[in-house]
Amino acid sequence: MIFRAWSWLAMEKADKYEKVMELGRRRGFFWPSYEIYGGVGGFIDFGPVGVALKRKIENSWRDFFLRRHEFLEIETPIITPRKVFEASGHVEHFKDPVVECKGCGRKYRVDHVLAEAGVAEAESMSLSELDNMLRSRGVTCPECRGEFSEPKYVQTMFETTIGPYAEAIGYGRPEAAQGIFVNFKRVYEVGRGRFPIAIGQIGRAMRNEVSPRQGPIRLREFTIMEFEFFFDPEEPSCPLLSKVEDTEIRIIPIQSEGKRSEKPIQLTIREAIDKKIILMEWMAYFMALSHDFVSQLGIPMEKQRFEEKLPTERAHYSAQTFDQEVYLERWGWTEIAGHAYRTSYDISRHMEYSGVDMRVFRPYTQPIEVEEKRLIPVMEEIKKDFGENYAEVVHTVESKDPEEVEREFLEKGFLKVGKYTFFRRHFNIKRFKVKDAGKRIIPHVVEPSFGADRLTYAVMEYAYSTKNDRVILKIPKKIAPIQAVVLPLMTRDELTSKAREIYLDLMEHRFDVYYDEIGSIGRRYARADEIGVPVAITVDYDTLKDDSVTVRERDTWEQRRIGVSNLLSFLHGYFN
Amino acid sequence: MIFRAWSWLAMEKADKYEKVMELGRRRGFFWPSYEIYGGVGGFIDFGPVGVALKRKIENSWRDFFLRRHEFLEIETPIITPRKVFEASGHVEHFKDPVVECKGCGRKYRVDHVLAEAGVAEAESMSLSELDNMLRSRGVTCPECRGEFSEPKYVQTMFETTIGPYAEAIGYGRPEAAQGIFVNFKRVYEVGRGRFPIAIGQIGRAMRNEVSPRQGPIRLREFTIMEFEFFFDPEEPSCPLLSKVEDTEIRIIPIQSEGKRSEKPIQLTIREAIDKKIILMEWMAYFMALSHDFVSQLGIPMEKQRFEEKLPTERAHYSAQTFDQEVYLERWGWTEIAGHAYRTSYDISRHMEYSGVDMRVFRPYTQPIEVEEKRLIPVMEEIKKDFGENYAEVVHTVESKDPEEVEREFLEKGFLKVGKYTFFRRHFNIKRFKVKDAGKRIIPHVVEPSFGADRLTYAVMEYAYSTKNDRVILKIPKKIAPIQAVVLPLMTRDELTSKAREIYLDLMEHRFDVYYDEIGSIGRRYARADEIGVPVAITVDYDTLKDDSVTVRERDTWEQRRIGVSNLLSFLHGYFN
Repeated sequence: MIFRAWSWLAMEKADKYEKVMELGRRRGFFWPSYEIYGGVGGFIDFGPVGVALKRKIENSWRDFFLRRHEFLEIETPIITPRKVFEASGHVEHFKDPVVECKGCGRKYRVDHVLAEAGVAEAESMSLSELDNMLRSRGVTCPECRGEFSEPKYVQTMFETTIGPYAEAIGYGRPEAAQGIFVNFKRVYEVGRGRFPIAIGQIGRAMRNEVSPRQGPIRLREFTIMEFEFFFDPEEPSCPLLSKVEDTEIRIIPIQSEGKRSEKPIQLTIREAIDKKIILMEWMAYFMALSHDFVSQLGIPMEKQRFEEKLPTERAHYSAQTFDQEVYLERWGWTEIAGHAYRTSYDISRHMEYSGVDMRVFRPYTQPIEVEEKRLIPVMEEIKKDFGENYAEVVHTVESKDPEEVEREFLEKGFLKVGKYTFFRRHFNIKRFKVKDAGKRIIPHVVEPSFGADRLTYAVMEYAYSTKNDRVILKIPKKIAPIQAVVLPLMTRDELTSKAREIYLDLMEHRFDVYYDEIGSIGRRYARADEIGVPVAITVDYDTLKDDSVTVRERDTWEQRRIGVSNLLSFLHGYFN
Repeated sequence: MIFRAWSWLAMEKADKYEKVMELGRRRGFFWPSYEIYGGVGGFIDFGPVGVALKRKIENSWRDFFLRRHEFLEIETPIITPRKVFEASGHVEHFKDPVVECKGCGRKYRVDHVLAEAGVAEAESMSLSELDNMLRSRGVTCPECRGEFSEPKYVQTMFETTIGPYAEAIGYGRPEAAQGIFVNFKRVYEVGRGRFPIAIGQIGRAMRNEVSPRQGPIRLREFTIMEFEFFFDPEEPSCPLLSKVEDTEIRIIPIQSEGKRSEKPIQLTIREAIDKKIILMEWMAYFMALSHDFVSQLGIPMEKQRFEEKLPTERAHYSAQTFDQEVYLERWGWTEIAGHAYRTSYDISRHMEYSGVDMRVFRPYTQPIEVEEKRLIPVMEEIKKDFGENYAEVVHTVESKDPEEVEREFLEKGFLKVGKYTFFRRHFNIKRFKVKDAGKRIIPHVVEPSFGADRLTYAVMEYAYSTKNDRVILKIPKKIAPIQAVVLPLMTRDELTSKAREIYLDLMEHRFDVYYDEIGSIGRRYARADEIGVPVAITVDYDTLKDDSVTVRERDTWEQRRIGVSNLLSFLHGYFN
């Protein structure tokens, strides 16, 4: 009991992060990986309740974004050959500046030590600027006060070799997006040319962080949920925008001077578009949905915001980026999603590096008539001037753009191609009308990208509450990892067998439910509250008389009697 | 049309593997990864229909094994520090023998080139035996006929470094099991001491195969579904065995001479236990379930078998292993699951390497009385012989086992501890009765481990059938990636709007359904058959009159009229 009192005192002083981590560990949500070997930073394990919660968040994301829009989901490998990340620019850009302490040998990310020294926005500095900043501020090793080495970049992808003979360099993917881009053309065809089209993926991704120290917030291996929305940049308007135009969100935009505003401004999606704060309608649409998605996970509007990234802070592929952030007690404003306007960057690069044409044919509603100029050689004139050789001579001009040829004649009076000089008399330039059925375009892309692990943590932090010194995890019932528990009031055979029967029936009907007979009814309610079970169903001696059970709600602790025959319909109604 | 005829001819000659791969690629089940970069062996991508099929197989596995037994599911990282795989024995044992051609430099797995030369069971040979076999058979490079180098082992885990400074070696896990073993104690506690207990995991695993050339059959990255069942080796009986004892399975056991029988024998689970063909009841129970699981995925009994592995073929941790195999047209008998009796190997090794006690306390139903011997020093005698020093002298004997002391006195007549020599007269040895509440045990483990990708392929191969030259994918309806399609007979507004309405209603009720209006009704039926959609719902002009639709079944092509108001209950009945 002394231990218990002490630990309660410790928890009283703890911040929300410690409380959530303690609960996570004790009740099987998540905990640091490889604990028996002393732990390895940047990895967490999900326990039984945590797996269930995370999966519900993933399925909720699927419903919210993919299913409702008929977007396509794919699954591609984590291990990716180097060529793909050369094309995507990650080999060049995916790196962090680090310094090593000359005294103790510890390594740090430069932006982190500068942030602790009060220097914000180190993200956008070059290596020499970082070096100057470290020297001018006299920043030294926080552990031993030793001097730092010059900053240098380290690659932050996990590197391996594909083929055990060290045949080819490969990386653990730092995002799921490239698996989508390299497959764009095939999935587009599988989708039978539907366009615009989005392709999504949920899966593991990896970033070899320098020194992750924030539990589930900064992970070296994590679950990413992202989709790439491909559209025609000449038809950028979003027909669904009207559905969300009144949604209000909080944005910290870049202002005219190229700096971010101090405080978030609150405005509707329509205003954000009209004021050109969000450049693309589709991006605004998905930001509105993402705001609603996070809200329904239990994080209120005033604890959410979208921070626009400065050009120097943006990833190399992005023309505009907003970090979607939620407020966490210990970590402050924390990115849980990124919204990037990736333009045609990725598809263009993969076309260039692979030599494969990934453009999309967009038919016009009606084939249009376009005027086309053609060069018609005047054979007599050409023969006269070039003699026998005339066929070869004409051939040299064939690939020339008639527009350009005409301009040359107008401006210079002649056209030189290789060793031949032509004059206006050698060609007639005629205009033809031709039908054009469509165009080939490189699609542009907007990408919302969520981190499932951080989101799971954030949901826990916002759900964490106490009542009479007891923890209640008020997870929204739609994503509650376990929906109901069935409890016999006491462990008497007649009660337990009836309770098991109800439990098995609910299982059969696909409810996420467990059965618990260990300990007093009060302790069992408390345990259920701690893991966020919205409904507790108790079988008592009255049940044996009138076939009714006590249903207790987690958030109100209210109890009511419900007939066993009405239980299924009650639960269906409660959770739908 | 010429192309179409040609391709039809090509498909006529193709084997099932080619047919399934062609369908997989064309209709979005799966295809080789990184195609635009020329492909990388051992990786596949899942398209939209493939993701749905694979997920249904995964969920079906969850239901069949975890949910029905209240087993616990966890999720742990792919990247694993070296220490874990040193403890598990993988660093030492997880390797393949390879040779390099001295002529062209190509590399091969020795067992593969020997298999092609007709030498089976190379799996169990040492490097020098392999070398001798290559020389004596005159096996040369299949590509250039060059001579081979001496065989050597290569590590077949993907290696990387954790921390971008190359701080610590890590591996991509080749199995999900170690994430379960290192967490056993914590999950056991989260489960509040329930025992026996199983812990499962579905996730990616990686094996750096030398030269994978079998599409989805031999992958370098794959999804594994496995659970570890922990039990008390002193209580090995399985109370659920009676539920499956009549299940018949086909086994190729090791016979008395230490060789495998030529042909499978068919017998019941009870017979397999009684004849000691399967050593552990729990293993037999899970093998029976696994047989049923694979059967309900559409693979008939006569295309399944369990092959016992020879001691030389078994993984280092296993005391008995059965490969669960299905017959595939091109690849022959192919492992889709492994059943291993891992004993206490993994937990013991992790205890040894981590120093953490992972034993489980097993209380006896009733505390038992045990007799305990204690040494009682006879102080007068000790004082007499050792004088002032007697306290220190007695202290030296305290940690001695009384049994051992008694034996020494009996055998030698004296006991020497350090510089002191004791005789019988210095101690009385008394017997006491004490209560013992339980014992600490290292649990034993049986493990069924499934490969989700191979299983997905096998399901496709068995579902693949043709009727009137058209492909019908007869995927069992419980795991059909898409359950229904809604089709307007023609693209007239009054039909399409009604069809969309029905489609949205089915979506709302959580059916996996799509809407299709492109092409003739016959082509749309054909498309649905090809991706295994069990039910097609057609909206026609009669629908507008009597509010009924045509429901067409994939496997029979039978059509019937059903009222729109009855559609939901029809579908619920059909799929449950």
